[in-house]
Amino acid sequence: MDHVRLSEAGDGVIILDQSLLPAEEKYIELETLEEMTEAIKKLQVRGAPAIGIFAGYALAALSKQQCRPQAIRSCCGASGTSDEGFLQIMQAQGDVLKAARPTAVNLAWAVDRVIHAVRVEMFRARREDPTRLNVNAGARRLAKAAEKEARAIHEEDKNMCLAIAKFGLEEVQKVCREKGQEGPIGILTHCNAGPLATSEYGTALGPIILGKEQGVEFRVFADETRPLLQGARLTTYELQKAGVDVTLICDNMASSVMKKGLIHAVFVGCDRVAANGDTANKIGTSGLAILAKHYGIPFYVLGPSSSVDLNCPTGEDIPIEERDPEEIRSKYYEKPMAPEGVKCFNPSFDVTNADLIAGIITERGVCRYPYTESLSALRD
Amino acid sequence: MDHVRLSEAGDGVIILDQSLLPAEEKYIELETLEEMTEAIKKLQVRGAPAIGIFAGYALAALSKQQCRPQAIRSCCGASGTSDEGFLQIMQAQGDVLKAARPTAVNLAWAVDRVIHAVRVEMFRARREDPTRLNVNAGARRLAKAAEKEARAIHEEDKNMCLAIAKFGLEEVQKVCREKGQEGPIGILTHCNAGPLATSEYGTALGPIILGKEQGVEFRVFADETRPLLQGARLTTYELQKAGVDVTLICDNMASSVMKKGLIHAVFVGCDRVAANGDTANKIGTSGLAILAKHYGIPFYVLGPSSSVDLNCPTGEDIPIEERDPEEIRSKYYEKPMAPEGVKCFNPSFDVTNADLIAGIITERGVCRYPYTESLSALRD
Repeated sequence: MDHVRLSEAGDGVIILDQSLLPAEEKYIELETLEEMTEAIKKLQVRGAPAIGIFAGYALAALSKQQCRPQAIRSCCGASGTSDEGFLQIMQAQGDVLKAARPTAVNLAWAVDRVIHAVRVEMFRARREDPTRLNVNAGARRLAKAAEKEARAIHEEDKNMCLAIAKFGLEEVQKVCREKGQEGPIGILTHCNAGPLATSEYGTALGPIILGKEQGVEFRVFADETRPLLQGARLTTYELQKAGVDVTLICDNMASSVMKKGLIHAVFVGCDRVAANGDTANKIGTSGLAILAKHYGIPFYVLGPSSSVDLNCPTGEDIPIEERDPEEIRSKYYEKPMAPEGVKCFNPSFDVTNADLIAGIITERGVCRYPYTESLSALRD
Repeated sequence: MDHVRLSEAGDGVIILDQSLLPAEEKYIELETLEEMTEAIKKLQVRGAPAIGIFAGYALAALSKQQCRPQAIRSCCGASGTSDEGFLQIMQAQGDVLKAARPTAVNLAWAVDRVIHAVRVEMFRARREDPTRLNVNAGARRLAKAAEKEARAIHEEDKNMCLAIAKFGLEEVQKVCREKGQEGPIGILTHCNAGPLATSEYGTALGPIILGKEQGVEFRVFADETRPLLQGARLTTYELQKAGVDVTLICDNMASSVMKKGLIHAVFVGCDRVAANGDTANKIGTSGLAILAKHYGIPFYVLGPSSSVDLNCPTGEDIPIEERDPEEIRSKYYEKPMAPEGVKCFNPSFDVTNADLIAGIITERGVCRYPYTESLSALRD
């Protein structure tokens, strides 16, 4: 069952509330724009591709709501009953969704894609009616276009994840073969870039889950990933479910397991890849890449090509979200674990320099350094 | 008020229970060997030098108990009322204490030192009585010798901390001057090597606290230090008390603050330094050293020369304690933050290779690479 999906009536989005995992598996239905943006902010849905899928469905559900007879056709200053009004409202809703998490490029990408599909539908309707007697396609038709596009984003993500998994598995098997490495393949991963962050196979966990299905043995070390513990809560949960040998470590233990020779490759996801290959991902990723380089371990970024933002020249151009200090000081704890009033610095992401990355594995293959060329070729 | 001290009657040890900080400042008195070893294991007292001071007082208190008229003069198979019996019991008690934390060399060092002082006193008594009419110095005299030695260890630690603080402050000021760095000195520290881990100034925090007293401004970033959060709980508490500008970060944010240019030096303590300079310290330290090297930031180890173990050739010879997986999975949390039954790897320490260390700062000055020479010169 998909952990992000449109409700049966099509006017709401159903998600597995990831903020409650692993203690509780609870699905919730979101109907209002406010509930939807809150779900993103509170990480009830997270992972760049999953947020993209979610945003698509969110716009589709909100579009469906515009078709209700009693619908108040207005949002954030935009209003109207014409096609243009419908689109203006969607655009305003999309802007609100986009602002919920500024770093993940998939969010903006999915929003723009759904809106674009609706606009295309609008123009198609106009072309189909050369008499110009009815200049409006109507809310129902536009909402259908939004839903179709949202479902397409989801479907494509599933296909992309499988392709990424295949390329990643091939790559790490090749690396181990070349090094004469036998036995289980040791992988270190950070945060969660599994099915919960995407769909089905996931990105960074894709090669592992696919490998497991094909009888390739992995031994995975999962960083707990402070402060929000996505590694402890989600990655171990997913890998345990998939029957993969997984060991949880604190983020600061990565150097130790690498030094012990337990890691043959690092697999991480990505929230945004700049045109030069600099990669924004969960805080702590850049440190892992530096450690991997020190220990001679290849470090891979796995993600759909939609995570590549060619409009963003380098990592310095990627906005880095800072979150509430209480996530560090008190969240999850029985009582605050730092003195009251102590300053905290809580960036949600960091940028890994392109030259530390052995390969960026997308659904179209493995891109290599220098990434400026290999990444732009993805869009050819 | 000293956070580790002998009780007024001299037969117990009073400590500030560090496992309760920062929420509660509670002093507890420990009387039995079991309570004392538990206090070490549960980290109610922690930090290699503080454990050494504690172990000295523990043996002094237990010796005083041997003077009680009703004392059962036996421990772990050793017994007797003679001086030899007294020493055998002490030795057995010392072995139990030593086993409580195998990595910190100061613990074994302090135990051996107190026992040695008592043995010396025993022989002195024999020499003073050439008639050999009374071959026993008596428990009271031996217990006094133990107390004297324990107090000497504590007093020396205070002097050592001050000396380390002076050398460290001088070093970092010189480094900043040479680089033309102005404004507050940015320091990253890991775990807790402050007064609570030692006495008065502490080791890694010594230059900062001394600097504050002298009007030198620091801006400190403290790693929270999972899983036991000594950085969040203790370092921020101590620096806040000392009026130092301190910002708490998660361990995986170190790379980010270094990349931003906020760090001019890394200061860490040490649990054991091998003869070649390889240094065992809190898990996560080795990763920081690698990051510091990547960013061109000098990485310093600060500790008393008693942390240097010349009998230990390299880091590979240092035993690394592994602790309970529940420390990662559930400790401090309202509910377990990882699925039931998930494997955890929880080494308490790691080893930083000597070639990553810009200087080992002891009370006798700054040792430089190659450490095999500079460290052995400490004992000259």
